[in-house]
Amino acid sequence: MTAPLHETRAGTPDTQQGMRRRNLSRVMHTIAADGPMSRAAVASRIGLTRAAVSTLVDELIRAGLLEELGPERPGRVGRPGSALAVSGRGPAGIGAEVGVDHLAVCLVDLRGEVRARAERHVSNRGRAPDPVIADLTALVEQVVEQADREGLRPAGLAVAVPGLVARDTRTVVRAPNLDWHDTDLSPLLPSLHRLTVDNEANLGALAELWLGEQVPGDFVHVSAEIGIGAAVVVDGRLLRGTRGFAGELGHVPVHPDGPPCACGGRGCLEQFAGEEAVLRAAGLDPGEGRVGLLAELAATGDAQVRQALHDAGTALGIALTGTVNLLDPQCVVLGGALSHLAPWLLPSLRGELERRTAGPACPIAISPLGSEGPLLGAAHSVVRAVLDDPAGVANGSVNGA
Amino acid sequence: MTAPLHETRAGTPDTQQGMRRRNLSRVMHTIAADGPMSRAAVASRIGLTRAAVSTLVDELIRAGLLEELGPERPGRVGRPGSALAVSGRGPAGIGAEVGVDHLAVCLVDLRGEVRARAERHVSNRGRAPDPVIADLTALVEQVVEQADREGLRPAGLAVAVPGLVARDTRTVVRAPNLDWHDTDLSPLLPSLHRLTVDNEANLGALAELWLGEQVPGDFVHVSAEIGIGAAVVVDGRLLRGTRGFAGELGHVPVHPDGPPCACGGRGCLEQFAGEEAVLRAAGLDPGEGRVGLLAELAATGDAQVRQALHDAGTALGIALTGTVNLLDPQCVVLGGALSHLAPWLLPSLRGELERRTAGPACPIAISPLGSEGPLLGAAHSVVRAVLDDPAGVANGSVNGA
Repeated sequence: MTAPLHETRAGTPDTQQGMRRRNLSRVMHTIAADGPMSRAAVASRIGLTRAAVSTLVDELIRAGLLEELGPERPGRVGRPGSALAVSGRGPAGIGAEVGVDHLAVCLVDLRGEVRARAERHVSNRGRAPDPVIADLTALVEQVVEQADREGLRPAGLAVAVPGLVARDTRTVVRAPNLDWHDTDLSPLLPSLHRLTVDNEANLGALAELWLGEQVPGDFVHVSAEIGIGAAVVVDGRLLRGTRGFAGELGHVPVHPDGPPCACGGRGCLEQFAGEEAVLRAAGLDPGEGRVGLLAELAATGDAQVRQALHDAGTALGIALTGTVNLLDPQCVVLGGALSHLAPWLLPSLRGELERRTAGPACPIAISPLGSEGPLLGAAHSVVRAVLDDPAGVANGSVNGA
Repeated sequence: MTAPLHETRAGTPDTQQGMRRRNLSRVMHTIAADGPMSRAAVASRIGLTRAAVSTLVDELIRAGLLEELGPERPGRVGRPGSALAVSGRGPAGIGAEVGVDHLAVCLVDLRGEVRARAERHVSNRGRAPDPVIADLTALVEQVVEQADREGLRPAGLAVAVPGLVARDTRTVVRAPNLDWHDTDLSPLLPSLHRLTVDNEANLGALAELWLGEQVPGDFVHVSAEIGIGAAVVVDGRLLRGTRGFAGELGHVPVHPDGPPCACGGRGCLEQFAGEEAVLRAAGLDPGEGRVGLLAELAATGDAQVRQALHDAGTALGIALTGTVNLLDPQCVVLGGALSHLAPWLLPSLRGELERRTAGPACPIAISPLGSEGPLLGAAHSVVRAVLDDPAGVANGSVNGA
């Protein structure tokens, strides 16, 4: 009847073994966040003895997760402390992104540096999943070869998709802008050590949380590619929702009697602020990859484009008024394509929020990661999984994996 | 630099003392949930030795939190086990509610039974906080006298208000239907052991979570008195928001160009589904306490009232479509006055949700607690604080308080 009070991710009960795994993770996270540093510094930081830390560090060095940079301050009394750093040659995370008009793959090492990148511009709208994933796999292979050359071992693959992914699965339940339905990507993707599939807005928000500066623990991350998505972070954790479908800001009704939407509703935000709607309002051909064009024309002062972006900002402001009233976040972060259009969206967006909310309006920040967020979030999700459970990395020299 | 890995609510580090306090709480919660039961049953349930449990139980009996019901199964070998029950005479929680047209106070014992109740119908709209709280205090005093007569000790007072309460304070930042602004209730309320002030929708949602049957851990609780509020529960925890203002469903824009709202916005849900709006649409005098009248007239088949409720349901459906898209809850619970009007609201509300959401629509449940939710939630919040930290109850016979 009695469940163990603590369980590690792998379900191991609260034993010596479990404690060792957690301590390995604490060592890794400490050095990743604030390293390079000596064993003594790690010990004082995490409150273990220097001997205990040395055992853990030796294990992590053997596993290729840490490396010694050589003796530091050799003049000091006692055994010279050697600065420890997270390995730039050990396991690495591969992130991939299926966009409506592009595919991209990148490789991030444990230090958080992007070590390889491959991408391809291709219209994926209405394409069957198989050829799309075949193209993506070719890019993954390029990046894996590059990893080999750099002495890095891919520890997993995480894929960002512009659609709803059922919680704890690799099944894309619905991706209207790709026209995919109930597509299990597991059999189509290369079998690296660890494979996850997630919504692009979720991974964009995690990138913000992990890589952003001064990002608070409670925020709503709004992103756009062709559609508009959002992700809600509460107390530093992603709010996924019962089925994994939380964050569908694009289908919040803005003008409930407005134009019909692919989701079955009417007057959803996407009908006013989605890329196609904005291009149409701007008098441009609703082709693909036109965000750059919108930004260019707006910058040159094109009145119709500016009006279209103004109106999109108004619609975003209405939908975000509801969101802010429901969630009371510390801020809203605009990411993805929206970050490039921010100068022309923000005035009307902020105006609506201020007009419609009592008291000070919720601050709006622009993501410094922009359209790179989901791809970086994907690669970093693999890196963080390694830091969270270094013993779980498939490597003979780490025990207990 | 090193923070203790576990801290109790009172901030005690992870020491023997902290562990004892947590174990006292585990014993209380186990017996409160599944008692009466023997010491041996408690021991096997929480995985401590019978001796350890006996020490904890003796302490809880001395503090008046547990009582022995006398020997059970005396024929068995060894010392006869005595059934333990949560005390029906120990500490109790006092809940109070400031409504727009009523005041109510109740007393709930550790067993969860309502032991006393006092209420008064009075129009509080536009009344200053002082006389309202003076009236409420008179009711609290009645209930405290009743507690005395029953041998119960009030362990705290929690007050539900129809407005926004700043997180971790007793300050009502804004209660538009009372016309209160930045009102700190601390100096006005009687000083019982523990005093908290919270939004009525939050306390209604907690009542649902604690007292409801088969309530999932992820839901949105929508309640109404004069205004419309909501509370969001995620993983069994209330999402409070940065400032404590989450759940303002009443001010989600439904028709953004609609009538102006007291919040500063236009076309908020409250303008279509708030009590006043519905009474007006039904051709009734927008006086107070008219929910009963609406339900009566709707039941007799009054066409204008039914149309008004149908339209309110439609507006609720539009606002909840946005909510469900953002949060993906397991269900939506209608509480407060809405639960009495559900038969006439639900068809159009469900219709909107189904029409506007792809896939199966989010289920809607009706709160069995109805308008009692916030008051019960308030009283139970005090009871749960006692169960969570029995050693913290002001009582000389419990050490370590």
